[in-house]
Amino acid sequence: MKKIQNIKALPGFAELNPGDQITFNNFKKIIAETYEKYGFIPLDTPTIEREEILFAKTGGDTAQEVYKIKKGDNDLALRFDLTVPLARYVAANYSEINFPFRRYQIEKVFRGERSQKGRFREFYQCDIDIIGDGGLDLKNDAEIPSVIYSVLSKLNIGPFVIKINNRKILTGFIDSFGFSDRATEVLRIVDKKAKITQEEMVNQLAEIGLNQNQIASLYELITLSGSNQAILEKLEALKIENQEFLQGIDELKQVISFIDLFNIPKDYYQIDISISRGLDYYTGTVYETYSVDYPEFGSICSGGRYENLAEFYTSKKLPGVGISIGLTRLFYQMKEAKLINGDAKTSSEVLILPLVQDLTEVVKLANNLRRSNIKTEIYLEDQNMKKKMNYANKIGVQYVLLMGEDEIKSGKLSLKNMRNGEQVSLTEKELVSLLKSLRLKKL
Amino acid sequence: MKKIQNIKALPGFAELNPGDQITFNNFKKIIAETYEKYGFIPLDTPTIEREEILFAKTGGDTAQEVYKIKKGDNDLALRFDLTVPLARYVAANYSEINFPFRRYQIEKVFRGERSQKGRFREFYQCDIDIIGDGGLDLKNDAEIPSVIYSVLSKLNIGPFVIKINNRKILTGFIDSFGFSDRATEVLRIVDKKAKITQEEMVNQLAEIGLNQNQIASLYELITLSGSNQAILEKLEALKIENQEFLQGIDELKQVISFIDLFNIPKDYYQIDISISRGLDYYTGTVYETYSVDYPEFGSICSGGRYENLAEFYTSKKLPGVGISIGLTRLFYQMKEAKLINGDAKTSSEVLILPLVQDLTEVVKLANNLRRSNIKTEIYLEDQNMKKKMNYANKIGVQYVLLMGEDEIKSGKLSLKNMRNGEQVSLTEKELVSLLKSLRLKKL
Repeated sequence: MKKIQNIKALPGFAELNPGDQITFNNFKKIIAETYEKYGFIPLDTPTIEREEILFAKTGGDTAQEVYKIKKGDNDLALRFDLTVPLARYVAANYSEINFPFRRYQIEKVFRGERSQKGRFREFYQCDIDIIGDGGLDLKNDAEIPSVIYSVLSKLNIGPFVIKINNRKILTGFIDSFGFSDRATEVLRIVDKKAKITQEEMVNQLAEIGLNQNQIASLYELITLSGSNQAILEKLEALKIENQEFLQGIDELKQVISFIDLFNIPKDYYQIDISISRGLDYYTGTVYETYSVDYPEFGSICSGGRYENLAEFYTSKKLPGVGISIGLTRLFYQMKEAKLINGDAKTSSEVLILPLVQDLTEVVKLANNLRRSNIKTEIYLEDQNMKKKMNYANKIGVQYVLLMGEDEIKSGKLSLKNMRNGEQVSLTEKELVSLLKSLRLKKL
Repeated sequence: MKKIQNIKALPGFAELNPGDQITFNNFKKIIAETYEKYGFIPLDTPTIEREEILFAKTGGDTAQEVYKIKKGDNDLALRFDLTVPLARYVAANYSEINFPFRRYQIEKVFRGERSQKGRFREFYQCDIDIIGDGGLDLKNDAEIPSVIYSVLSKLNIGPFVIKINNRKILTGFIDSFGFSDRATEVLRIVDKKAKITQEEMVNQLAEIGLNQNQIASLYELITLSGSNQAILEKLEALKIENQEFLQGIDELKQVISFIDLFNIPKDYYQIDISISRGLDYYTGTVYETYSVDYPEFGSICSGGRYENLAEFYTSKKLPGVGISIGLTRLFYQMKEAKLINGDAKTSSEVLILPLVQDLTEVVKLANNLRRSNIKTEIYLEDQNMKKKMNYANKIGVQYVLLMGEDEIKSGKLSLKNMRNGEQVSLTEKELVSLLKSLRLKKL
């Protein structure tokens, strides 16, 4: 039979080996459990949406990055984020939703971008949003960094900083120049601060029409440094009489003072006035999160406050605040930085290697272990000892139970620790205790 | 702004409310954990595959049921099952895989079928497969029903029966008529046994050329009844000297005798010679599983043994055995049968309602509870008591903590059980113990 030659996963599409997948799934689990610890509830929307829904905001601008689907008369496409499906869901189910609606969603999204290193065409987003009906207290903006801190401190990425800003400070400042019509362009340039030189930024701002004084004062604004308290004082000292600007300072002040209650170590969050988020739907608080040791990862968790989630689908005013972790990308970056070793190629806590033909006692033992919630694998192939041990070595299981005539007769099990070669003889009860105590140590 | 009118999820696409989603996710978790308890490791392949891969076997026959994707020069489509991606994965990563390869995959698949009740266009499949390199011991076929039993007995669907057969018995029997060229057609008709009358089956078998004697003996075969032992004896008593038929009996005998070791209650598995699985890639053991109280659900877990998983992608011979649970469909059937109530609309174990303006102590308590792994939600909106209690009622949380001046001053917390209205005063430590003990009760 003729074989198909091209059998790799499509370029730009993640496909982990099972060892890495175990770690990845563990990340997903940690994230979901942490989100739930803050009262977020799960949502799982269809992968496919109507184009009309997906392009409501952009009018089809992003169409070339979208995977379109041919099917009958409907114009369909794969979702490119989890925010649009959330907006549609909330609009469609408004009357049944309890507000504030705290939902999390951990699912794949799709972007048909040019394939390049560190960019994925299919990737997991791990989102939370809190949606209010008509209004949403600013305290929610302060709880979000606490969630970020809880999640990321469990993912073994080392120290990180949650950078916080309020976009009203930037947009108010731009407005004070009389440039509010070009605010989006200014913000897009400011957003590139980490990636371009000061000179490049100055040139780009000049190109869209800012004069030298304006550029200088904007640059001063976005590079304000010091403690959070110091930055807030410097902002006020600027004495800019723009309503939006002042409101931004006030909101940021409230958010920062409330964050302080949440027990996040001081090093882990700071005001950074240059954080603007390129996307234009944020209207207040914005967040980006950077690894201290690996700033090249870029922002590993971003988000912010928006005024109206679902304006294209409902006339209800639905303000919200949320964040997203691009987990697939983060995982690959961590893998490359050797923060993930992928040693574990199995979830099995113990592998039973039968050395007898009659497996009655072997299966009985496996039944008991599984009933005690021990992940137990039996090697069922009729192979020689060398092949059996070879399999045990390759899957990287820590404990192997050798079940021969002696063990079955005596009721004493032979447990081999594959990490150090040690072999001990113990009862079934002792075995269960040992494996469970190991599990507690790993927690 | 003009609003988009059609904001419902696409027809045929499941979209659960968060309450049901909590239950659904719990099902997914139970299934994954049970699969892992038998040594299966996770795989997560791209949602999108090349058409060439997807249609390798069918040559495009199923194309109309597939969601095709327009993107550049590539002919892409959404996967319609998890078996084809597994075959591609194993072929592409053959040299790195440890065989027998026990993988599980719980993900969405897509079928553009005509929308009808109980049929989904996007749905979760929960698959396990054990793939051998060159060969795979028959004992694996016997362990599979033990996995099915473990999973389904945790899903609250009541009693069920795993029906087991070996397709060689049917194909050998058909071959003994000299009809092996029409075996697939015969099996498709046999497969409909539960859905059509005896007369219809007789007519359909006559149409494809079987004579009355052949039909009568085939019908006798597929309706053999009695204990597993009795059926095996009746099969042997037929004295049919067909190699394949005899091999089928021998395999079935071995599988059944080995299943007996796995501690599955006798009522939960039985030989049924009419089980053939319409799909033609099974070559040995086949399984279907039926609810005793809800036979109308159809088979809730099916699968079988196949000779060669990936013949279109590699010349390596890779036999395997596997099963699949169509979880989305099962969930909706259970929901309709009122086996799922969907009462829980939150995962939060406790909701804190602040009755003070300064939230310092409220947040401190929440921090502590979350550190003790208690799922804790704070109501952060500045609303009156009625609105706060209303929210608590609506989300269906069992426990509410009222945090007013008195509670903060005394350090004694007021915990209200929303199910029975009881209110108790207790310390933080007592609260943690109480909530954790409740959790143990639910296990």
